Amino acid sequence: MTCNVMSLTGSSCDMPGVHRFEHAELGVTDLEEATAFYTDVVGLIEIRDDGDCVYLGSGLDETFDIAIREGDTGIDHFAVRVADRDELERYKARLDDAGVDVKRDDGNEPGQTAGLRFDLPSGTRMELATVEDRRYQHSNEVHGDGRGGAAPMGVDHITLASHRVKDDATFLANHLDFSVSTAVTDDPDAEEWSGAFTRRGDYHHDVAFLPHPDPESTMHHISWEVKTVDHMKSFIDRINQHDVPLEFGIGRHYAGDNVFSYFQTPGGNRIELTAEMATVDPAADTEYLPFERALSAWGPVRPPESFQEDVS
Amino acid sequence: MTCNVMSLTGSSCDMPGVHRFEHAELGVTDLEEATAFYTDVVGLIEIRDDGDCVYLGSGLDETFDIAIREGDTGIDHFAVRVADRDELERYKARLDDAGVDVKRDDGNEPGQTAGLRFDLPSGTRMELATVEDRRYQHSNEVHGDGRGGAAPMGVDHITLASHRVKDDATFLANHLDFSVSTAVTDDPDAEEWSGAFTRRGDYHHDVAFLPHPDPESTMHHISWEVKTVDHMKSFIDRINQHDVPLEFGIGRHYAGDNVFSYFQTPGGNRIELTAEMATVDPAADTEYLPFERALSAWGPVRPPESFQEDVS
Amino acid sequence: MTCNVMSLTGSSCDMPGVHRFEHAELGVTDLEEATAFYTDVVGLIEIRDDGDCVYLGSGLDETFDIAIREGDTGIDHFAVRVADRDELERYKARLDDAGVDVKRDDGNEPGQTAGLRFDLPSGTRMELATVEDRRYQHSNEVHGDGRGGAAPMGVDHITLASHRVKDDATFLANHLDFSVSTAVTDDPDAEEWSGAFTRRGDYHHDVAFLPHPDPESTMHHISWEVKTVDHMKSFIDRINQHDVPLEFGIGRHYAGDNVFSYFQTPGGNRIELTAEMATVDPAADTEYLPFERALSAWGPVRPPESFQEDVS
Amino acid sequence: MTCNVMSLTGSSCDMPGVHRFEHAELGVTDLEEATAFYTDVVGLIEIRDDGDCVYLGSGLDETFDIAIREGDTGIDHFAVRVADRDELERYKARLDDAGVDVKRDDGNEPGQTAGLRFDLPSGTRMELATVEDRRYQHSNEVHGDGRGGAAPMGVDHITLASHRVKDDATFLANHLDFSVSTAVTDDPDAEEWSGAFTRRGDYHHDVAFLPHPDPESTMHHISWEVKTVDHMKSFIDRINQHDVPLEFGIGRHYAGDNVFSYFQTPGGNRIELTAEMATVDPAADTEYLPFERALSAWGPVRPPESFQEDVS
Repeated sequence: MTCNVMSLTGSSCDMPGVHRFEHAELGVTDLEEATAFYTDVVGLIEIRDDGDCVYLGSGLDETFDIAIREGDTGIDHFAVRVADRDELERYKARLDDAGVDVKRDDGNEPGQTAGLRFDLPSGTRMELATVEDRRYQHSNEVHGDGRGGAAPMGVDHITLASHRVKDDATFLANHLDFSVSTAVTDDPDAEEWSGAFTRRGDYHHDVAFLPHPDPESTMHHISWEVKTVDHMKSFIDRINQHDVPLEFGIGRHYAGDNVFSYFQTPGGNRIELTAEMATVDPAADTEYLPFERALSAWGPVRPPESFQEDVS
Repeated sequence: MTCNVMSLTGSSCDMPGVHRFEHAELGVTDLEEATAFYTDVVGLIEIRDDGDCVYLGSGLDETFDIAIREGDTGIDHFAVRVADRDELERYKARLDDAGVDVKRDDGNEPGQTAGLRFDLPSGTRMELATVEDRRYQHSNEVHGDGRGGAAPMGVDHITLASHRVKDDATFLANHLDFSVSTAVTDDPDAEEWSGAFTRRGDYHHDVAFLPHPDPESTMHHISWEVKTVDHMKSFIDRINQHDVPLEFGIGRHYAGDNVFSYFQTPGGNRIELTAEMATVDPAADTEYLPFERALSAWGPVRPPESFQEDVS
Repeated sequence: MTCNVMSLTGSSCDMPGVHRFEHAELGVTDLEEATAFYTDVVGLIEIRDDGDCVYLGSGLDETFDIAIREGDTGIDHFAVRVADRDELERYKARLDDAGVDVKRDDGNEPGQTAGLRFDLPSGTRMELATVEDRRYQHSNEVHGDGRGGAAPMGVDHITLASHRVKDDATFLANHLDFSVSTAVTDDPDAEEWSGAFTRRGDYHHDVAFLPHPDPESTMHHISWEVKTVDHMKSFIDRINQHDVPLEFGIGRHYAGDNVFSYFQTPGGNRIELTAEMATVDPAADTEYLPFERALSAWGPVRPPESFQEDVS
Repeated sequence: MTCNVMSLTGSSCDMPGVHRFEHAELGVTDLEEATAFYTDVVGLIEIRDDGDCVYLGSGLDETFDIAIREGDTGIDHFAVRVADRDELERYKARLDDAGVDVKRDDGNEPGQTAGLRFDLPSGTRMELATVEDRRYQHSNEVHGDGRGGAAPMGVDHITLASHRVKDDATFLANHLDFSVSTAVTDDPDAEEWSGAFTRRGDYHHDVAFLPHPDPESTMHHISWEVKTVDHMKSFIDRINQHDVPLEFGIGRHYAGDNVFSYFQTPGGNRIELTAEMATVDPAADTEYLPFERALSAWGPVRPPESFQEDVS
């Protein structure tokens, strides 16, 4: 691989930049209830409604952030954005070389131009995708109607529930140019970790993992970016006005330094709101942290018991 | 150049990531007055005092952000961070090939391990630097004593005053893997631009240019990151309490979408506070904008006349 | 007047407390356009639609904040809340004694239980009103459907355009127990003032006056409370997304210390967003300030020319 | 009592307005440690140092907020501001009539011009005080040196630990013109309450009570006003940088709607940070709430066990 074609108007190399968690397809227990929550309360916009699958976005660009479909909670697959088809082909070659079973999945999702799908070691399905709308989001411009005033900026990262945390994180590092920002463990050489936070771009994590004994479990939460803790507070007030309580927060994680709050949403699945995630030098070493420290920067906290449970 | 050594714990390739504006050395009309302002009022910490040069940082990491020295206002040089010595050597080779006069400058600044210095087409001196402290900044940890409560997170970007805007931006793109996020011009094919915003990482700009007829002018402003507009407001109140007025703002730029405010500081030089700068897809095309539009996202604004003047 | 009946659960005296600007009835050039702006963009809720008059509120209580009616811009009347009918009767007696022409206007507006109407010396019609819903606004509870996520907390104060500023302010002080927090003048003994800020409760101003030569002009702006400058920023982004530019701000006034921004709204009339208004000790003396100082706490600012014009 | 002297420039009646919690004198286990925390970390300014007693203020006016003295934690007395000496005399007469033992204490504290001291039914000593500096706090002006950038705006309210909650709240209502905004109880007619929130001005509470079985216990916490939840976050980061953890929060109370966080401070005693406290109509009825509801607006929360303990 070479990066010798430099141009004035675009980064010429396929190395990690802003590439990050792009979207996830989720199961919800009640499609109508979940759609109403995400549009009327959260203020997302509907990008496409296929009848059994509704595609929702922040409205700040034309890409969707989550697709919801009636069924078991958790994820069908999650996607990470890559720059273009060339980059996609190179990753396909690398995954093929590594013996990973890879399938093309092009153009079946709104705004996604091409995709590669494969399974993580824990079995969760991942996608690399290229998107049509690669512009940056001007804060004062919306695409489509209906973005609500307290709506998040878009998806920020996904935290998977995995029975093979270290294997999954290592897979991302070995084959897909992720770096491990933080490994949650008392012993860096332990066979398994209690969590892993991996990045492809500047932000501390795009895809994270928390341990779960059940091989069928897929997701701990999807995290949505809010601009500030004040925005977070307005969002919490907003969902409270519609009878959705806060599950855990407001606090600050130490792994990633992001300010957080968690909810269990109508129709199932947990979401996090996140603000102020740290950016990390590409050359920074992995940080090893015990769980309690990784969880909270502001001192010991007691998450509710539900927080450890599988609510996908 | 190849990127074939993938490792678990660090990005293995030297392409742009979080690399950004690292520091600048500034002239100030009164070293004592400027030092007092930056430490007592702004809340920066003193990293080193050489007698005639004071190195100041945010205290959230161990690197310095600005060095100030008594003399004419404006910059002696500004630096952009690169990952390591290997990357530095590769850029040296590329600049040598392009016939650019390059000098090594290693270890003369606190926390900087190696450096390359050369001139932009407009004559302003630039440095590529590697730093010792590449950790990410945990929000609740400080290094050294004295960080003030309203202090910025660190330097964010630098906006140079240039008599050759397009040449300078093209130089960064051709030799140093910057991308032009926004060119300020009514005509993309014009011989000169009225501004340029260039990035090496995810953020919309790390180094920007505004036009100035005087070849000796070097800088329009240094921009400091604040976390939120609320932090910005507290900072403005803080400097007002010490008799430094706001020059321009609070507004939102359209080029970069960052919320801004500007001041002229005791000892000379203009600073900007910035929050919420947009991140840009590596594959995004350059955006061409007229000046008035680039300046303000929220509608027409009238900057004070001083804003166009050379206060470096 | 005596205050000798003390009870456990309510303030026992009719003196000023939280009583403040309660509502205004406004003319708009296009009722449909204005209603769409206030509901779809601002996120107010419709309390009642009489066909030719639409009553709008924040949704955080059951009272309305503005009534809009097609016609000339400016106000038909504005209302200040008093505690109950007893207090209303006492003010009626005082105004009668002073020879002011007073009319009862009970129950004609939604949620208003009783009202007294009369003219200020400048001719602008004022109302004292009692309201049905005197509960305090729980931040996480809404009344009615449709409150938008960036909606303000409610009306904060009104700034009238007056050709008799000092007379109007003196009227409020002499007959209605307002205090003059700030008089805008270089000379406290001047026959006329360049502005006046009057309060009935803890906040620096509930009703303010700016000078205008035209006796027919009624209003400079209605001000809406936002919780924080971050909320203000989100609101500005929101209306920008619907093509309404910022007219002036974000800045901080010195008279009242409130953070401000101004807009001209679809259908006419100027609104202000305000946050962080100072509270004032009941025993504090009037502060006399020159106009430029009263206008801006953060240093000299240049409002656009439109800001001085009569846009009601 | 009559209110017949109306003047242009000041409130003419002595009824409650902005009057609120003015200061408290606290015991601390280590005076030097506590002083260092409040000045270096919190950013308060030292108003006077008597050797064994240090008076600290926000620096936004010239009054002090807390006096600290080495000894047992908890309060020696707390003070509520009244308008002037006339009002003080009237309260003296009312307390004398009610058989309360009252002592004058004039001019012994910096900036306090006159004072009345007496005991609440639970035994905690209270003061009514008049102050010299009754100006309102301009946000961009400081008095004295050293106010830190994350410092609070001043004290907001005090929450006493009482073994006679209902008696104490009733005393304030009967003799000192407080209103009970919220009583914490499942049964309004119960002989004792699980908490009470009382106000004298517009804000939901100035003096609150939580039950504690020990007659010697005096205080649950002193609450400091921060402007916004963003300011609160910066304050938490700030004290964390100096190794003081968060005890409980960030959450939103339902009784008062204020956003909160709690800490145990070096030298003893608990402080709260508070923002966005609701204002209440003087004529509003008392609200009766169960404890869990009063505690949290955002859903069920689990305070740490320490939160119920007597840390004064």
